[in-house]
Amino acid sequence: MRMVDFIAAKRDGQEHTAAELHELITRLTADDLHDYQLSAWLMAVLWRGMTERETITLTEAMIHSGEVLDLHDLADWIVDKHSTGGVGDKTTLVVAPLVAAAGLPVVKMSGRGLGYTGGTLDKLEAIPGFNVNLDIDALRTTVQAHGIALAGQTAQLAPADGKLYALRDVTATVPSLPLIASSIMSKKIASGADAIALDVKVGRGAFMETLPEARALAELMMRIGQGLGKQVSALLADMSQPLGLAVGNALEVAEAVRTLAGCGPADLVEHCLVLSAEMLLLGKVAGTPTEARQRVEQLLSSGAGLDKFREWVAAQQGDPRVADDLTLLPSAPVISELVSSQDGYIQGIDAREVGLIAGALGAGRERKGEAVDPAVGIVLHHKAGEAVSRNQPLAAIHARKTEQADAAARRLDDAIRIGDERVAPPPTVYEVLCAPALTS
Amino acid sequence: MRMVDFIAAKRDGQEHTAAELHELITRLTADDLHDYQLSAWLMAVLWRGMTERETITLTEAMIHSGEVLDLHDLADWIVDKHSTGGVGDKTTLVVAPLVAAAGLPVVKMSGRGLGYTGGTLDKLEAIPGFNVNLDIDALRTTVQAHGIALAGQTAQLAPADGKLYALRDVTATVPSLPLIASSIMSKKIASGADAIALDVKVGRGAFMETLPEARALAELMMRIGQGLGKQVSALLADMSQPLGLAVGNALEVAEAVRTLAGCGPADLVEHCLVLSAEMLLLGKVAGTPTEARQRVEQLLSSGAGLDKFREWVAAQQGDPRVADDLTLLPSAPVISELVSSQDGYIQGIDAREVGLIAGALGAGRERKGEAVDPAVGIVLHHKAGEAVSRNQPLAAIHARKTEQADAAARRLDDAIRIGDERVAPPPTVYEVLCAPALTS
Repeated sequence: MRMVDFIAAKRDGQEHTAAELHELITRLTADDLHDYQLSAWLMAVLWRGMTERETITLTEAMIHSGEVLDLHDLADWIVDKHSTGGVGDKTTLVVAPLVAAAGLPVVKMSGRGLGYTGGTLDKLEAIPGFNVNLDIDALRTTVQAHGIALAGQTAQLAPADGKLYALRDVTATVPSLPLIASSIMSKKIASGADAIALDVKVGRGAFMETLPEARALAELMMRIGQGLGKQVSALLADMSQPLGLAVGNALEVAEAVRTLAGCGPADLVEHCLVLSAEMLLLGKVAGTPTEARQRVEQLLSSGAGLDKFREWVAAQQGDPRVADDLTLLPSAPVISELVSSQDGYIQGIDAREVGLIAGALGAGRERKGEAVDPAVGIVLHHKAGEAVSRNQPLAAIHARKTEQADAAARRLDDAIRIGDERVAPPPTVYEVLCAPALTS
Repeated sequence: MRMVDFIAAKRDGQEHTAAELHELITRLTADDLHDYQLSAWLMAVLWRGMTERETITLTEAMIHSGEVLDLHDLADWIVDKHSTGGVGDKTTLVVAPLVAAAGLPVVKMSGRGLGYTGGTLDKLEAIPGFNVNLDIDALRTTVQAHGIALAGQTAQLAPADGKLYALRDVTATVPSLPLIASSIMSKKIASGADAIALDVKVGRGAFMETLPEARALAELMMRIGQGLGKQVSALLADMSQPLGLAVGNALEVAEAVRTLAGCGPADLVEHCLVLSAEMLLLGKVAGTPTEARQRVEQLLSSGAGLDKFREWVAAQQGDPRVADDLTLLPSAPVISELVSSQDGYIQGIDAREVGLIAGALGAGRERKGEAVDPAVGIVLHHKAGEAVSRNQPLAAIHARKTEQADAAARRLDDAIRIGDERVAPPPTVYEVLCAPALTS
């Protein structure tokens, strides 16, 4: 096919054939395409969209652009999770050991990614000694021995998606539902998942700012999964304010440990319980939602989740004592408190702005390959809906330098809106979209 | 500015600032832009459009991306024409000498372009010896001596437009009104025009297939001209069927000569008279439309136009005897007649298809730098609305080989639709949009 005709077809709102999309991805993988043609096509996709059929075909083509893992030697049925990303999202650190403690093997590949704050890999690396650089064999061995392992994503999985994403990132063609959905699903399916629990975040700190947008993305990913024979369910979870209280790598590890120890912040606990229960259902470890919920609550309260976390950390060369002594985590030299300048109720905490402030403190990276500072970040003391008094501490700022802490405090003061009106806190999980019953 | 933000702004339907557009063109000219970012932006422009202010600024920036000719040593007021291109469009060959004969200096730069059939340069080169490769000095000298000269466009004029166009051509981003309008106007204004008569073609054989589209393009170019202090008027001219009867380089030269000699086909004669009169008005050689029309009619009937043509050809090293002996033009070895298979009226002649047939015979080029065959082409004997009888010749096919002529005849038979219904011929010129009176 001539690329210029292919671009013109999408520009004019036509549907591509499966053969065309497969050829596109084959040529992309073989470096047999001009970037300038691909980027014009990407913008045409943002403009005209893609049909469900096109999106499923694109996903399928990207899955098969590289290695596709088969992990069925580890378990009959592989369940994975994916979060669309948010501020303070340490869910994997809680959910992975909790689910593994229930006997469902957890084999997770994470991208390092970019963002205000670090990704899951960066958070785990805040644990002294923790090694995320497992190859596939080491990943298998670890799961076989401990039922849980997490590693950085290899470039061999869905390489076409990697190339496409790199181009989207520099051509303002990221925000397209079919491109986002096919990117996520191609990586998850190439990683060997039979079932996927999606954690789609909604609000100012997330990619999808409104519930209808988030629902549309979730439903599209579920349809892709269904089209490719996978079972998928999705949570629509709040990201108008940060999840939990801690934002920053080591600070989030500490919060995850506290959560596994039974004293996590209410919203994070609830979010982790809902997601873990969903994974147990997908993994056929529990037969009903009630059974799944009771199971994860019991694993949390019994300390089984924390035990599995300790075992996991040790299995990946981390210091398992962090599960019992949080002072072993890196800490920042400057810790300053932001106090409230007024009496009132917290109307809202701008998740995006909190993420940016943490990023400015050094918790995130702007460019691939940059190091993150594991120690810095923010710990909120209160969340939206809570009453605060003048001079009461609102948040602790963990910084490298005093000036950075002062700058962060000024911004954070604006990000935490306080008013006279009594407001209800936002729900933690708006909706759970259940996997359709597939013949399996 | 960060290109990714610039692209995102257009993607989101925002208006660019003048500073941003000037920076874009400066960086494009200096090869300081990634093609893949530029092409994503171009597709976003197709999607979101550009405001009039953006379009004018883009045009201005492209004009100043290279040399801007000042031809006021040749005349106080430089008038140019531009046709958006069509099949059988030999207008320049008639209008340029006619207008020059009226005392208005004609200094024309033509692009060689791509298309079904050759451009003006290719047509002139069908005249033995004719030299279109004049540099600016030779162009000036020739105009000073003869009042008329035409040369190939130099790469020094509006180089940013050249680069942008090359990228648009391979990324399916040609059909955007603001991009088309700014491209045309930047080249014309960089060529030194104070006033421009636009010849915007409408119909199957033209870029704009409908009258509203053509009017929108014409009006946009007029507003660009006005915004940059130029006087612009526009014809909306029919291109549902070929203009005149001849399609092909030497065949069109012959038709132009016959037209200047007073025996051209009615539609071509009328089209040339309207356009020439418009140029005399723009050139302030005539004060009223009636005066302008009378003047060009008189120059045509007196043979003054043909005399100027002869002088022009000689001035550019061509054989001036072609003006009196058309057998001096290249001719094709095979000439075959297509005859009508039925009685009836010609309902229409698909201009685009006729152009493609002539191109297949060798009259045009698909790739830059390819040679065109000057001799081949098609000469229609009848136009839309005319009655024809079975076995009456419809058109002559001038070809290099018999098989090519046969293939062309089969396609041409389909392109000339004959039916029982009596139909009116399409008008030659739909509308003339007059230049607004600018203070000058």
